Amino acid sequence: MKEETDVYDIVIIGGGPAGLTAGQYASRANLKVVVIDKSRTAGALAYSSRIENYPGLTQPMPGKDLLDIMRKQAVDFGSEHIETQVVGVNLSGEFKEVVTMDRTYKGKTVVIATGSMGRKATIKGEAEFLGRGVSYCAICDAAFYKGLKVCIIGNSEEAVKEAGVLARFAETVYLISPTPKLHADDDHPVFKEPNVKVLAGFTVAAIEGNDQVERIRMIDPEKKQADLELSGVFVYLHGNKPVVDFLYGAVETNDDGCIPVNSMMETAIPGVFAAGDVTCTEVRQVVVAAAQGCLAALAAEKYLYKRTKYKMDWGK
Amino acid sequence: MKEETDVYDIVIIGGGPAGLTAGQYASRANLKVVVIDKSRTAGALAYSSRIENYPGLTQPMPGKDLLDIMRKQAVDFGSEHIETQVVGVNLSGEFKEVVTMDRTYKGKTVVIATGSMGRKATIKGEAEFLGRGVSYCAICDAAFYKGLKVCIIGNSEEAVKEAGVLARFAETVYLISPTPKLHADDDHPVFKEPNVKVLAGFTVAAIEGNDQVERIRMIDPEKKQADLELSGVFVYLHGNKPVVDFLYGAVETNDDGCIPVNSMMETAIPGVFAAGDVTCTEVRQVVVAAAQGCLAALAAEKYLYKRTKYKMDWGK
Repeated sequence: MKEETDVYDIVIIGGGPAGLTAGQYASRANLKVVVIDKSRTAGALAYSSRIENYPGLTQPMPGKDLLDIMRKQAVDFGSEHIETQVVGVNLSGEFKEVVTMDRTYKGKTVVIATGSMGRKATIKGEAEFLGRGVSYCAICDAAFYKGLKVCIIGNSEEAVKEAGVLARFAETVYLISPTPKLHADDDHPVFKEPNVKVLAGFTVAAIEGNDQVERIRMIDPEKKQADLELSGVFVYLHGNKPVVDFLYGAVETNDDGCIPVNSMMETAIPGVFAAGDVTCTEVRQVVVAAAQGCLAALAAEKYLYKRTKYKMDWGK
Repeated sequence: MKEETDVYDIVIIGGGPAGLTAGQYASRANLKVVVIDKSRTAGALAYSSRIENYPGLTQPMPGKDLLDIMRKQAVDFGSEHIETQVVGVNLSGEFKEVVTMDRTYKGKTVVIATGSMGRKATIKGEAEFLGRGVSYCAICDAAFYKGLKVCIIGNSEEAVKEAGVLARFAETVYLISPTPKLHADDDHPVFKEPNVKVLAGFTVAAIEGNDQVERIRMIDPEKKQADLELSGVFVYLHGNKPVVDFLYGAVETNDDGCIPVNSMMETAIPGVFAAGDVTCTEVRQVVVAAAQGCLAALAAEKYLYKRTKYKMDWGK
């Protein structure tokens, strides 16, 4: 069989911690690798103004800086890094095709590592203060608000639970629910925390401040304006959404829109793997995404090796 | 119910990447955490003279340095770090007990992150005398052999290096290589130690003794039997074995001796988690172990939270 010269061993879609770690491991194994990255300044980690809980960091750093290091590792080991947008895929053939605005990349395997994106910012000031007082992850950022006043906006059980995490650090946690009733048991232990104050039926109209968040403007249940001075706003309205639109159903997703994988990051399609926040993972943390990228690369390598081996067997 | 004051939320056994990342995440969630570490210079990562494929490294570094960084993160966030050996556990009660040489640590949850070491016992008598003269860790156990005769079996650079460690304590160190040539430079400083004697091309057929190791039986390069009287046998051949001896069967292991866990690192015992190379993981890489430590800590936190909630429900 004629081997096409411009075929990659692995085409990795996504340049976050999962995609870059997959790139590093695959290129270190001497495979021909391309990492296709929508933008080096986009994605959940790129948007984190400060990360300190990634194991191995000697000091907190902007998420973008950690990404720069991971990208350098992948490129130094031999990965190509292309900044462009993927608009479609064809995963059915022997050589899988990944279509970008500029050209089509062919790969013997594909790793989908496009992550998940927060909801569209809908509160006035939310986008503006992201990383400067606005956060979507209490577990990640609670420790920065020791002794300060913060709020959580949301009415889900997750929002209530995360209020409990924040309550261990913050002076006061305002749990602001747009509905009169929250989706959690009335005797949920978080409601007994002395520094958690529930404001049910309040809408947040704006987040304000100068360099950092300083206050929020709310509409109370009587439609009157109420302001709160605080330093942190944790938004838990709608959840994250895995980025799978460019697949147009080529890979199975579940009801939450995430890609189911097994313990070696294999999807239902042979030779197609997924890693990081785009998968149906229970924990969205950088170190978990990186580990999944590592696993996906090693699984892809195994798949390629077996494929070569079978081919040689057939050729006998 | 009376809460014991000296009870930890999480007792983590093992101070490698899995245990330290679990410590970091758990203490960052404001839980009361102790990490019990046999030795900060023991374990698979500590023994790596150079690691470069961990995502986020700006340059290659000794494994020990990466561990130092991870340990500092765990301690800075509030983990206690204790250097001592765990000799037994009692995981059946509400408060799980982890017994060390010095005292017993009580925990509401336990994370087992002891890694894997050494290899499957293949030499006759090796399994029988493990802990009674047979060891896989010179750095851990060398001091027990002050003034005694010991041997190291292996031909790797690590084996040669560890012979140097033993030479500081033992009267004589026999470095027994199954191959005529060792994988180390001829002018390696260990070969100049007056009490290191190299036996190249020798195979160890059996380890013998009564209560403790007393001698080994070897086959020399001329296929003749040769015996050596000695007290310690340090095996540095290939392969890895999960470190589970201190559990004495308290947690289920599979045929390979590893601990099966689900995707959230839960073992078969509620409140007991495992992470890293001690689990039945397919890939033994630092980033994977660290991610598993993260997952175990978050799963333990969830378990603790639910437990609190149930208790309050019962108390009504």
